[in-house]
Amino acid sequence: MQRALNISRERFADWYQAVVRDADMAETSPVRGAMIIKPWGWGVWEQIQAELDRRIKETGHDNCYFPLFIPLSFIAKEAEHVEGFAKEMAVVTHHRLKNIDGKLVPDPDAKLEEPLVVRPTSETIIGDAFSRWIKSYRDLPMLINQWANVVRWEMRPRLFLRTTEFLWQEGHTAHATVEDAVEETKKMLEVYRSFAEDILAMPVIAGEKPENERFPGAVNTYSIEAMMQDGKALQAGTSHFLGTHFAEAQNIKFQNDAGGMDFCNTTSWGVSTRLIGGVIMTHGDDDGLRLPPAIAPKQIVVVPMLRDKPEDAEVLTYCEHLVKALSGLTAFGQPVRALLDKKPIKSAEKRWNWVRRGAPLIVEVGPRDAAGGNVTFMRRDDLRDGDKVKSIVKPRVDFVENAVQHLTEIQAGLYAEAKARLDGNIARGVTDFAGVTAYFGEDDESFKGWLRVSWAKPTGDALEAVGAKLKALKLTIRNAPADQPAEFAPCVFSGQPGVEEILIGRAY
Amino acid sequence: MQRALNISRERFADWYQAVVRDADMAETSPVRGAMIIKPWGWGVWEQIQAELDRRIKETGHDNCYFPLFIPLSFIAKEAEHVEGFAKEMAVVTHHRLKNIDGKLVPDPDAKLEEPLVVRPTSETIIGDAFSRWIKSYRDLPMLINQWANVVRWEMRPRLFLRTTEFLWQEGHTAHATVEDAVEETKKMLEVYRSFAEDILAMPVIAGEKPENERFPGAVNTYSIEAMMQDGKALQAGTSHFLGTHFAEAQNIKFQNDAGGMDFCNTTSWGVSTRLIGGVIMTHGDDDGLRLPPAIAPKQIVVVPMLRDKPEDAEVLTYCEHLVKALSGLTAFGQPVRALLDKKPIKSAEKRWNWVRRGAPLIVEVGPRDAAGGNVTFMRRDDLRDGDKVKSIVKPRVDFVENAVQHLTEIQAGLYAEAKARLDGNIARGVTDFAGVTAYFGEDDESFKGWLRVSWAKPTGDALEAVGAKLKALKLTIRNAPADQPAEFAPCVFSGQPGVEEILIGRAY
Repeated sequence: MQRALNISRERFADWYQAVVRDADMAETSPVRGAMIIKPWGWGVWEQIQAELDRRIKETGHDNCYFPLFIPLSFIAKEAEHVEGFAKEMAVVTHHRLKNIDGKLVPDPDAKLEEPLVVRPTSETIIGDAFSRWIKSYRDLPMLINQWANVVRWEMRPRLFLRTTEFLWQEGHTAHATVEDAVEETKKMLEVYRSFAEDILAMPVIAGEKPENERFPGAVNTYSIEAMMQDGKALQAGTSHFLGTHFAEAQNIKFQNDAGGMDFCNTTSWGVSTRLIGGVIMTHGDDDGLRLPPAIAPKQIVVVPMLRDKPEDAEVLTYCEHLVKALSGLTAFGQPVRALLDKKPIKSAEKRWNWVRRGAPLIVEVGPRDAAGGNVTFMRRDDLRDGDKVKSIVKPRVDFVENAVQHLTEIQAGLYAEAKARLDGNIARGVTDFAGVTAYFGEDDESFKGWLRVSWAKPTGDALEAVGAKLKALKLTIRNAPADQPAEFAPCVFSGQPGVEEILIGRAY
Repeated sequence: MQRALNISRERFADWYQAVVRDADMAETSPVRGAMIIKPWGWGVWEQIQAELDRRIKETGHDNCYFPLFIPLSFIAKEAEHVEGFAKEMAVVTHHRLKNIDGKLVPDPDAKLEEPLVVRPTSETIIGDAFSRWIKSYRDLPMLINQWANVVRWEMRPRLFLRTTEFLWQEGHTAHATVEDAVEETKKMLEVYRSFAEDILAMPVIAGEKPENERFPGAVNTYSIEAMMQDGKALQAGTSHFLGTHFAEAQNIKFQNDAGGMDFCNTTSWGVSTRLIGGVIMTHGDDDGLRLPPAIAPKQIVVVPMLRDKPEDAEVLTYCEHLVKALSGLTAFGQPVRALLDKKPIKSAEKRWNWVRRGAPLIVEVGPRDAAGGNVTFMRRDDLRDGDKVKSIVKPRVDFVENAVQHLTEIQAGLYAEAKARLDGNIARGVTDFAGVTAYFGEDDESFKGWLRVSWAKPTGDALEAVGAKLKALKLTIRNAPADQPAEFAPCVFSGQPGVEEILIGRAY
């Protein structure tokens, strides 16, 4: 069978859409900008949630749940306080429908006195709770997380990457000192980095955002940035040190141990269903999706080759035993997720369904395999020899014995492949803006990778000018990587002495 | 220490509110009718979700996620189709805010062409997807579930029991035949029954709702009904057989194996955060909440008795070892959830915090316990001897060895206590309406329990008249229990020959 797709860097967006569709991950919904996450896509999110939730709890955070709706007055207070506050929000104005002249409409008699905003983030409503919950230094640190849906109106939606409604976790914490809050901010960035690399097999560069790319109201914003196969950056997670800005706006105070009242230092941090888009654009290939085993809803899929013949019963029994044996194994600290695909469709169709969905190991069992005590299997990370599919026949016992090793190798292999791509596509040595222009050109579509350059870290108007220059080339500063050299080249923007290295690239 | 609360049947609502507050489960929010679920309450929901989700998946259902917003036209179509359609919904009319004359308001230029409704349930949007996803009998059954937040405007909100926003799971399935769909409806009712009884330790009566209590548009609605400690019924879960009503409205068709096109038979079923209210009202006592160990976020809490003295280090180490040993045990198929409470507050305060929160086992360790290799513990299900707290001193080794047995006993004990109350408070033998009136009186507050009586199962106007008669006494028919006798007394409403036994009671 020919490859179903073509991961062309020139038509990457089309390829992405085709993978999402063929892998049965998600689809657009009748509500513009909102998506339906289908079982295979949701299964990936469940794995992401379970593993990340474990790490969030391990670092001392408690989950809770805050209301979907936020009073407009809360948002208004925030907007006053914070420059660059985005206003694309869904606004609830009525609490009842009414049939008027045969048409169902918002009931004019049920207009809310104060409109409600569907949460775009919960900073304000959680801050309000913190101001009530926190009384003394004994209540600190307050370490809270929630898993929730949020809404930000999107004019150019794209499945998983940019949707009007998306799902995420948002951590919100309050601390007695700047040091504690900064430590928390960096700790959670590291949780995201290790999660992305170890679990999503998605190498990232962790670093601090420049001033003009900060979360509105943050003192520092940190991010992890991943490189997609078209060379663009995906901001895969952010962690913000908010200083006392939000605490002052919301009166989050505590009595210190000397008896005086201080404002708390707060943080917030989050990752979203966007990560799924990142996984697709990091690991997909010409045959569709490839899932890192650590987050594959099913890691091993067994397809019985049935032909409506008497041998079928034997094949099925053989497969059931196989799935049972595999399910008894442990990989990545969890029971192996094995599935027997009994759907009443042709075996070849099943095979390609699972190839496109990116199941790490696909096993086919026909009468000959069953009779001979064998299995025929494919590794999704190493599917082809030229155009031919690599089917490997092995004794069943050997396959079961090596299954976990296969999964571990696939996980490591996907990471290594992506890591080589990331490392191999960050260019250095450019020292002036002409070099930046020459590197990226003005065509948004061809593969570019990123540039790592020095700059003088301008602020105010000078920084704005830098932002505008980059914007003209559709570029942004992604972050200043955590690992900085001892010496710097001159600033690519001003020629002044450099003080920091930054990453420049096109981004989602 | 005296009991903090008084579970008075006369002032049950006050008691309930006090337990929710003192157990730190949830609180009201600045948005009327919506609640903040605090870590201990959320922890209970996480346990409920994990266990119920396992059972929903085991019965063959896939999770997915549908959009929060539903186009008004979908709702309008449904409303046309379904009598008794509730219209208390949150309506989104704008997608942007704007600063006008210094005030943040819904931007008049960002009015939605078609208003969006915040999902009160996802029947319509999932039905729309089914109509696209289902093509042939090979696609059936389609078995879908989602965990989501939903909104129904509440005029008289009450934490967990009735909130404008609540969290739930909603299952939606489509089948080729009536038989398959009915089987599914009953299967999920049984999943709810066993979950409520085995995991929540909350005995229920499963049965079918009378016609006038059905979900609008359902052919049959089944429920599980639990008896709270004030004698009122709590509908704790429902399962609906929808026939082809929704399929016809939404054009959910499949090609049958003869090549013709048939409408699907569909079902839906759900339970919500209301279950947490049920747990509180089933198991709480004068000291606060008692949690069934199967859903307690922490099953065993270890409180070190620290005194700012040198022995403290030894006590802490002793406690750490204890928690580690307990965490290595398995109860209810999961690792035991043990916590070392190191909060910098007084030990006595900690003890009472955990008593009020209903932690099943509370262990206190002081220097004498640590030196002697002992622990002092309390069982939350058997906390008192008169006014005195029963503290039991045991060798550490014995306590660890018996910990799982304690948890199992507490789980079984809470169930038995609630079961005895349920069984003991369903009166029989009433054969006319005067008897019904005499049993319940007209005072809503005193403890009554339920009546189990025969009726002639009237329909239409006759049924409406029955409903009105009951309503005057603040009563409803809860359901017709699954276990029906061979013979029936005369109908309590009409004196005609009875054909079914039903439960009558006051309800939440």
